[in-house]
Amino acid sequence: MSKSSAFSFKTTAKSTQCHARTGVFSTPHGDITTPIFMPVGTCASVKGLSPEEVREAGAQIILSNTYHLFLRPGADIVEKAGGIHKFMNWNGPVLTDSGGFQVFSLDKLRKLSDDGVTFKSHIDGSKFTFTPELNMQVQHKIGADIIMQLDVCAQIDAKKEEVARAAELSLMWLKCCYAEHERLNIKNDHALFPIIQGGFHADLRLQSTKDAIPYAKHGIAAGGIALGETAEELSKMLAVMIPHLPDTIPHYLMGAGSPDYILAAVEHGFDMFDCVYQTRMARTGTAMVDEGRLNMHNARFREDFTPIEKGCTCEACKKYTRAYISHLVRCNEMFGLRLLAIHNINWTLRFVERIRQSIRNDKFLEFKSDFLLQYRPECDKK
Amino acid sequence: MSKSSAFSFKTTAKSTQCHARTGVFSTPHGDITTPIFMPVGTCASVKGLSPEEVREAGAQIILSNTYHLFLRPGADIVEKAGGIHKFMNWNGPVLTDSGGFQVFSLDKLRKLSDDGVTFKSHIDGSKFTFTPELNMQVQHKIGADIIMQLDVCAQIDAKKEEVARAAELSLMWLKCCYAEHERLNIKNDHALFPIIQGGFHADLRLQSTKDAIPYAKHGIAAGGIALGETAEELSKMLAVMIPHLPDTIPHYLMGAGSPDYILAAVEHGFDMFDCVYQTRMARTGTAMVDEGRLNMHNARFREDFTPIEKGCTCEACKKYTRAYISHLVRCNEMFGLRLLAIHNINWTLRFVERIRQSIRNDKFLEFKSDFLLQYRPECDKK
Repeated sequence: MSKSSAFSFKTTAKSTQCHARTGVFSTPHGDITTPIFMPVGTCASVKGLSPEEVREAGAQIILSNTYHLFLRPGADIVEKAGGIHKFMNWNGPVLTDSGGFQVFSLDKLRKLSDDGVTFKSHIDGSKFTFTPELNMQVQHKIGADIIMQLDVCAQIDAKKEEVARAAELSLMWLKCCYAEHERLNIKNDHALFPIIQGGFHADLRLQSTKDAIPYAKHGIAAGGIALGETAEELSKMLAVMIPHLPDTIPHYLMGAGSPDYILAAVEHGFDMFDCVYQTRMARTGTAMVDEGRLNMHNARFREDFTPIEKGCTCEACKKYTRAYISHLVRCNEMFGLRLLAIHNINWTLRFVERIRQSIRNDKFLEFKSDFLLQYRPECDKK
Repeated sequence: MSKSSAFSFKTTAKSTQCHARTGVFSTPHGDITTPIFMPVGTCASVKGLSPEEVREAGAQIILSNTYHLFLRPGADIVEKAGGIHKFMNWNGPVLTDSGGFQVFSLDKLRKLSDDGVTFKSHIDGSKFTFTPELNMQVQHKIGADIIMQLDVCAQIDAKKEEVARAAELSLMWLKCCYAEHERLNIKNDHALFPIIQGGFHADLRLQSTKDAIPYAKHGIAAGGIALGETAEELSKMLAVMIPHLPDTIPHYLMGAGSPDYILAAVEHGFDMFDCVYQTRMARTGTAMVDEGRLNMHNARFREDFTPIEKGCTCEACKKYTRAYISHLVRCNEMFGLRLLAIHNINWTLRFVERIRQSIRNDKFLEFKSDFLLQYRPECDKK
């Protein structure tokens, strides 16, 4: 039975230079213009910020995490609250990751079988099992617009056979997730994204791409990359996938948030990105600017009464000076971290808007090379 | 030479039942309706909150601290920023404490002489000396509307001779502060408040009251009480001072922030109060309500989809549930502490507004006894 869908994707501009494109992804909670960066609210809160601040920083969609919400407060409570949108008072689109990444990165005592994964809570050590079916039930209770399949993430240094096994298991689970999602998705108001695995092995990644595509109705994601490798290494893997990805759906590169990763991803036809990079940088007292990063602990900011970045329209730059923000950072005042989080998220969302504009003008590669020429990620290390 | 002043105090209502009164205290940065609670921004930031949030919570004046600002960022930097109002983007009145309390409570290695106090920074152990004159110079550079004399605070358990010596030294320093303040106050846009000492000894407190009054042009403060004693013990000392305090100036009880202290202070004719209680409670996950305190860690809030307090108009209560806030608190999310800080400050400012209303209706004592009947400070301990 065919159901009419609340999701659609339309390409609005295409680069003639590369795979870069702009588009509009429609969801039940509003449209998203792509390429887009999605701020991360792991525990149903973008660290330190109110939903209004996240919205004012330009966010169109936020990400949350099934592993964390499953443990606290529990999916039943989010469901009773009326779903994650109401629970956290964010009325825009939400995407939940399945928690596969957390299970495989946080817990060394996990037990993996064909049926699912048993893991211990990082909070109190209590044991839980995610089957693909349970994971879908949990995500449907949480109620995000876009939900991710339960996948198996191999470590960046895993042997090839481990990566192959992870991809194989991810495909098995994808099939289970798909069936359970179809059963649960009675109002057709949730979209399931499959996740391509295959690590850094072109042959495995190609196979995983082909395997995932039949289950990609509304979008598709790439996982197991953007883990700290160089942008060049990342690009190689993106180039393996992109020729095979349907251009009628959005492509989501999981965990990409630094400017060089986002540029590589856009060049290779990816549309959606998320990362905790922006808020984590803020918590270390770091501001993102076009030239790279500013470590606000640096003594040169003590008497600098200019904004973090000239021309920036965020609350932090409109109302406060580097001198004040660096003072707050030195005193470990929460408000300092909050202003930096606002700035970093705002900066990144302006960055993707500049990327979209460059694609509309068919000058994306010029924008990319100009940007990278001035960008020094380590320009002001602590 | 007489200079016209930017400060004035006008009583607008007087209780016939006790010393309670309402008034308007005019300052160069705006009027303050009294009795008023002043949120504390120790390091030029009310912990976790933006100035807009503090204003929206109903704050009319905030407090900051000379000891902390002297060490970080330094008075010269605040002065170069254009003063504390510009530095922290708060355009209302500001009061700075002299830092006497911090010097005597934080530092066990201080050295006291008639001329001043030498102390070690709690940050890096470096040595500084506050003379009354230097303290005035520092406070004038910071630029608050209301500045406090440098005083000597005896500990709550000090022997009577120590308390007497502290009061004596405080008076000596008051005279030096007054002279230096008069010299510096060329635009007459800063008000110096003397501080009454004398601990819990009625005779010493009476003497200190009489000693301080000649130097109280625009306001007077009581220090060395509201340190954790019962409201009854506090009241005894307030009763010693109030018959002697000029009713033409505001009376400030330093460090009072809990509802029982505020009620005792108002009853005995005090008009201004400050405390870190509200933001400190927030950081421990505690919400202030009419019934006492709610520990948001308590399991009963997990599925409680009502606001912290029904009828409360603060951002936290308008937009979020106890379930969500308790979830944030359990996850140690900054946004949870922020919402509790907003609520607690808003609650306290609504509390003093209710007090003002009861005075206007000449029913303050009824309000006080009704409130204390339901109020259980320990109602929901962790």
